[in-house]
Amino acid sequence: MDSFTSIENIDKIVKQAHQAYLWYKNKHVKDRAYLLHSIASEIENSDEEIISIAHQETHLPKEALRAEKSWLVEAWRENAEALLSGHVLDIRIDTKVHGSDYEGYDLRTIGKGLGTVTVFGASNWPFAFSTAGVDTSAAFAAGCAVVVKAHAAHPKTSVYMEQVIKRALEKAGYPKGLFGQIFSNRNAGGQYLVKHKLIKAVGFTGSVSGGRAIYDTAGKRAEPIPVFAEMGSVNPVFVLPAYWKNNAAAFAQRFKDFLTDKAGQYCTNNGVLIVPETEEFNSFSAVLQNELKAMEPQALLTDSIADSFRRGKAAALNVDQVEILAQGKPGDGISVESIVLKTDTPVFLANENLSEEVFGTFSIVVTYKNEDELAALSQHFASQLTACIFAEKQDLHKYQALVETVSDMAGRLMLNNFSNGVRVLYATQHGGGYPATSDSRFTAVGPFSIKRFLKPVAYQNWDPDYLPMELQNKNPLGLWRIINGEPTRNAIR
Amino acid sequence: MDSFTSIENIDKIVKQAHQAYLWYKNKHVKDRAYLLHSIASEIENSDEEIISIAHQETHLPKEALRAEKSWLVEAWRENAEALLSGHVLDIRIDTKVHGSDYEGYDLRTIGKGLGTVTVFGASNWPFAFSTAGVDTSAAFAAGCAVVVKAHAAHPKTSVYMEQVIKRALEKAGYPKGLFGQIFSNRNAGGQYLVKHKLIKAVGFTGSVSGGRAIYDTAGKRAEPIPVFAEMGSVNPVFVLPAYWKNNAAAFAQRFKDFLTDKAGQYCTNNGVLIVPETEEFNSFSAVLQNELKAMEPQALLTDSIADSFRRGKAAALNVDQVEILAQGKPGDGISVESIVLKTDTPVFLANENLSEEVFGTFSIVVTYKNEDELAALSQHFASQLTACIFAEKQDLHKYQALVETVSDMAGRLMLNNFSNGVRVLYATQHGGGYPATSDSRFTAVGPFSIKRFLKPVAYQNWDPDYLPMELQNKNPLGLWRIINGEPTRNAIR
Repeated sequence: MDSFTSIENIDKIVKQAHQAYLWYKNKHVKDRAYLLHSIASEIENSDEEIISIAHQETHLPKEALRAEKSWLVEAWRENAEALLSGHVLDIRIDTKVHGSDYEGYDLRTIGKGLGTVTVFGASNWPFAFSTAGVDTSAAFAAGCAVVVKAHAAHPKTSVYMEQVIKRALEKAGYPKGLFGQIFSNRNAGGQYLVKHKLIKAVGFTGSVSGGRAIYDTAGKRAEPIPVFAEMGSVNPVFVLPAYWKNNAAAFAQRFKDFLTDKAGQYCTNNGVLIVPETEEFNSFSAVLQNELKAMEPQALLTDSIADSFRRGKAAALNVDQVEILAQGKPGDGISVESIVLKTDTPVFLANENLSEEVFGTFSIVVTYKNEDELAALSQHFASQLTACIFAEKQDLHKYQALVETVSDMAGRLMLNNFSNGVRVLYATQHGGGYPATSDSRFTAVGPFSIKRFLKPVAYQNWDPDYLPMELQNKNPLGLWRIINGEPTRNAIR
Repeated sequence: MDSFTSIENIDKIVKQAHQAYLWYKNKHVKDRAYLLHSIASEIENSDEEIISIAHQETHLPKEALRAEKSWLVEAWRENAEALLSGHVLDIRIDTKVHGSDYEGYDLRTIGKGLGTVTVFGASNWPFAFSTAGVDTSAAFAAGCAVVVKAHAAHPKTSVYMEQVIKRALEKAGYPKGLFGQIFSNRNAGGQYLVKHKLIKAVGFTGSVSGGRAIYDTAGKRAEPIPVFAEMGSVNPVFVLPAYWKNNAAAFAQRFKDFLTDKAGQYCTNNGVLIVPETEEFNSFSAVLQNELKAMEPQALLTDSIADSFRRGKAAALNVDQVEILAQGKPGDGISVESIVLKTDTPVFLANENLSEEVFGTFSIVVTYKNEDELAALSQHFASQLTACIFAEKQDLHKYQALVETVSDMAGRLMLNNFSNGVRVLYATQHGGGYPATSDSRFTAVGPFSIKRFLKPVAYQNWDPDYLPMELQNKNPLGLWRIINGEPTRNAIR
């Protein structure tokens, strides 16, 4: 079942998806929300077997996998509710021109699905960012069909989750072709998908090199298509002086918990910690060393990720004046130790590779001597998914310019916290500029992620009897709409 | 003044714009709206001299230029009002998680400007899509700085409008560097701008080849940047049988008025008319021939556009079984005749060049014999800015599948009208898939065009005293915000 899909079969799957899309695209939001809720229930009701399968394939703790599955169920349901609210569709109706009376001009606009979307899942989230993950959910919400390229690191989980979706489609009476999945050797199948004329958008989660390759291919098409790729990020942490003075030891404790959770395999992992070079550094390092030394090694997702971890670590340690600050028990093969390196500002700024993501239980602490070094560090980073500031009130007051610079860097800003899990809410922003993602204007998670796959279509002076239900005067679906500039759920009288 | 800007000076202008952006980006929406209103007033108060200058450079009728200038003033004001409403900023605040009580989780998100935007104006709208046009307005609204590459077809108008903006900036006490303009020989300066590290987005209006070149350059950058290019479109018109039977002669009259307005130099010009091959065709062509034959030739914008017009016309007439249906008095040099060609469905479908835009007073009428031909035509077109359907109620009922296909084709759908001017409203959608634009998810005109230049930034559990004003509990600016899923202008208590 996890053998590779032939190009002929990929083409067939895409064409089936397109046919299903032509059927699905005009389903109103209630019908689409119904499908999303059905898939959520099907995922929720999947049994413990899938946890074992995913655990075997990913080495992630079963508890973490159960939590991930619950999170994903919530994400599908939130997308369904967002559809029913109407918010993400950006429905706008103008029947007046510039506040004057009705002049016979009537313009009604709604977001519609782009077509068939292809999704590339991530190795580190076998449920949430894979076959039945948030990209698939957002695309279905938008009225699109989906073809997933299954991640090679968890083929059995992918097959299982495909069956979950197919079951939900069947129960709902929707065409099974609305969802397709392919298995591909290296990148041939994925590249074929991205080039396929009937594919109209791409969702990707993974490395910068992988995301960039897809972005470039999509941009070279005769008809370029949008790619939303969530890629690399070191999510720097800036610890400001007053906070540091009061909390260095407690900070070390919290950081250790964060670093070692799920073997650090979060895209929001904080890979660089910027802290003052003051006497408190000693208590910070003492606590961190003590906490980490008893830490058992953890298995990473794949052998190749473990290899990358070791290569990244070696490259960093190869830089003069980069040293090991603290580490846990050594690993072997797919298992690696938790490790924190240390260097100072001039060395960090002079060696670009120290700013690159090393996926896993790895971080580097950079010390700064003064405000100039801190300012230089704040301007050093490429765009990020998250940036964290640890600060007392007096720090926020004193370092306003720094906070401003940092707030330009990332899609999400945290105060006095590491960039822990992403909750699925309207305000969710899981994105950032390049190379964190390929388009800073969108989010990978949350109801607003649906907008990646929607295009506005305006109906001008259309026959009221032939408008899409979402745009009709009576507002039969009870959606939020901006009517002559005012958001309302009311009908038009 | 319209000599070419050296690369050194372009670099200087971009750096000045970036410095001004760093000052401007944290101005709250009221301060930005104030600037937009100031520029609107300055444009409004510019004297008749600019109409003469633009007329001389573009050959557009003075009346059309005055109307365009008024339209532009309105567009700046609408963008300002949209900012003050808050809609386009997509402000979302979640203080509850999934309907439960407050759990100490607080997430607040707002759209922020991408940085310095470069704008490439169009030849056919020296005010509305040029130096002080809608792209510049949208970028300022988003909190961005702007560097325009002036269009070579109207350099004096560009210099004048630059002074208009600079005057408004000066009066408002804003840094003049917030707006810059360059003049460039061929594409060297423009390409340099698109590659410049401090340029973070591009707005373009023009040809497919020009837009695609910029799109490709932007995509090849180390840090790719978003390009919104509005390019080519033939905006097909589908006339359905019952409508045709009742209105063929009146339709010809309306079409002639539309075709010849402003020498047909609209991006929403309807270049292809699809009509039934029935006896009513005779009255249609009789009226059209009669209306056009007395029509004087009109000067196009530039010699090169007149050349393209003649080349496009010759290429179309070179196709077997394409003939002249109606034409006006012949032109010479920059002046061209109004002309309508005719062919049938098989010929049209077999000759791709007949579906390409010929800018100016040019259209082609394609006749269909039956529903199969009509269906084939409806599936033939690439994406479009607009598509028009002329139909009686019974047509809409009978041809639902056709209407559905057409509604996938374009950003704006018109019923029983040609795609006349674009009004600036919340519902405005001036966009479409490739090659109509480079990104179907956005609009070039209207308040929602501001979203092209905004990226969401989320503040998680941020210190309330240091939140941007737009996200503060008290909502001091009275903006619309989605709070725990409900749009409201109320404060958070």
